[in-house]
Amino acid sequence: MWYKICIPLVIGRDLLLRKSLNQTKEASRSTTFTVPLYIQIAERLISRIESGDLSPGAQLAPERELSIELNVNRMTLRRALKVLESQGLLERRHGIGNFIANSKIDRQTETIFRFSSGMAKRGFIPGTKLISVEVIEAEHRLAKDLDIHGSSGVYDILRVRSINHEPVMLESYKIPLNWFPGIHEFDLENRSIYEILETEYAVKIARSRQSLEPISANSFEAELLNINLGDPLMLEKRISYDADDQPVEYGKDRYRGDRFRFITETSPVDI
Amino acid sequence: MWYKICIPLVIGRDLLLRKSLNQTKEASRSTTFTVPLYIQIAERLISRIESGDLSPGAQLAPERELSIELNVNRMTLRRALKVLESQGLLERRHGIGNFIANSKIDRQTETIFRFSSGMAKRGFIPGTKLISVEVIEAEHRLAKDLDIHGSSGVYDILRVRSINHEPVMLESYKIPLNWFPGIHEFDLENRSIYEILETEYAVKIARSRQSLEPISANSFEAELLNINLGDPLMLEKRISYDADDQPVEYGKDRYRGDRFRFITETSPVDI
Repeated sequence: MWYKICIPLVIGRDLLLRKSLNQTKEASRSTTFTVPLYIQIAERLISRIESGDLSPGAQLAPERELSIELNVNRMTLRRALKVLESQGLLERRHGIGNFIANSKIDRQTETIFRFSSGMAKRGFIPGTKLISVEVIEAEHRLAKDLDIHGSSGVYDILRVRSINHEPVMLESYKIPLNWFPGIHEFDLENRSIYEILETEYAVKIARSRQSLEPISANSFEAELLNINLGDPLMLEKRISYDADDQPVEYGKDRYRGDRFRFITETSPVDI
Repeated sequence: MWYKICIPLVIGRDLLLRKSLNQTKEASRSTTFTVPLYIQIAERLISRIESGDLSPGAQLAPERELSIELNVNRMTLRRALKVLESQGLLERRHGIGNFIANSKIDRQTETIFRFSSGMAKRGFIPGTKLISVEVIEAEHRLAKDLDIHGSSGVYDILRVRSINHEPVMLESYKIPLNWFPGIHEFDLENRSIYEILETEYAVKIARSRQSLEPISANSFEAELLNINLGDPLMLEKRISYDADDQPVEYGKDRYRGDRFRFITETSPVDI
């Protein structure tokens, strides 16, 4: 209906151009809308982080100094810092200060994720804690996904993965009892589940189909991952198939949003 | 260190098997940990939704009835319902009741997303509202991503996309001013941006590289998307390339977590 061209406040730099025009078809109904100042400040800070100008672990100047430097009031600055926090870019330590969070780890979605080797390759110390192994009855939907009979038994293996002793991911594997009898007797804490399937049962995961959803941590997840209730998590649900295209595993992983991001590429479009 | 095999409570069904064993190497340090009851109840309800047993728009039985049916107290039930809410599966309308949310829309990540045609194909009425068009100075990182000179001008186009008149996605396109001079004079509300690039500037997007991150809605996003502060959003950042592999657009979209999920497939592994 309307649009507006303008230069937002460019803090601490010369304006390239300031131009403002309103083209209003229905003047009475239009409202002027610009991106709020705290969002602009947040984007400015995010860009400083992304360019490496503010690096991981660095402590931000105290709020009083920062608000003078950025020429905004404390209230606006705090709202901007909250935006950074909501994106997992800033860690606020009460009574100490604000710190730039560690860079997020890129997780390619096109390849099957191997946590331990992937993290070790990036220079982290990977760790695993087995939380529980249960046998549950496959409900209608799970039975369908795993292509097994309804009410068959399914192992549910729950583990917490860590890097450098910090919990970052909660994973659940659901695998049919009939296919993998006795899997609970193997060392599910120190071995890769896929490696156990392959070595002990001669079943190799060939491909998987995943969905990704942003969710808020519930208190169970928050406790296991040592984060706050409501912090953003990436929920990955996954069905994995063997070489014969038989589904063999239903996975449900929750990744800390402040530690991971997921990279995808589109296939080239026909030109 | 330890594990536990057991059947969780299977509510309203016969137990398939109840078996419990603790294998503890370091008995003194181990703690018994089982999935809390409210998580089990939540998973049971989620599975009812996923199987279609509880369908979108359906109203749940009142909490009192539901807690009797599921044989749990009100407190546990409420915590379970909160889990569903945090995953965007339940909509709580104050004073009215709890409703199963609409199914999430699957967005394939392997193909370039065309909102209007994609939504229309799914039977929704797509809509677009132009919020602002600004010219900003490309900062170091953005200039690098777009392969332009630092301090060049960049258009920043902000739009809200809706389906059936409900806002579901907030999108920002940043495109170089030099490449697309005068783009603000086209109808940025009713035309596709990519279509304008192609028709008016003979630049066709051939592929893009995206990152996906779960974030919590800040107040700006919450206001534009008509959701609550802190609700989960998927942040997609994207660099799009033309047929000559020149970057032409830097995009930053925020999708409502209760309306979208993202589907990826791994490439088959060599066997």
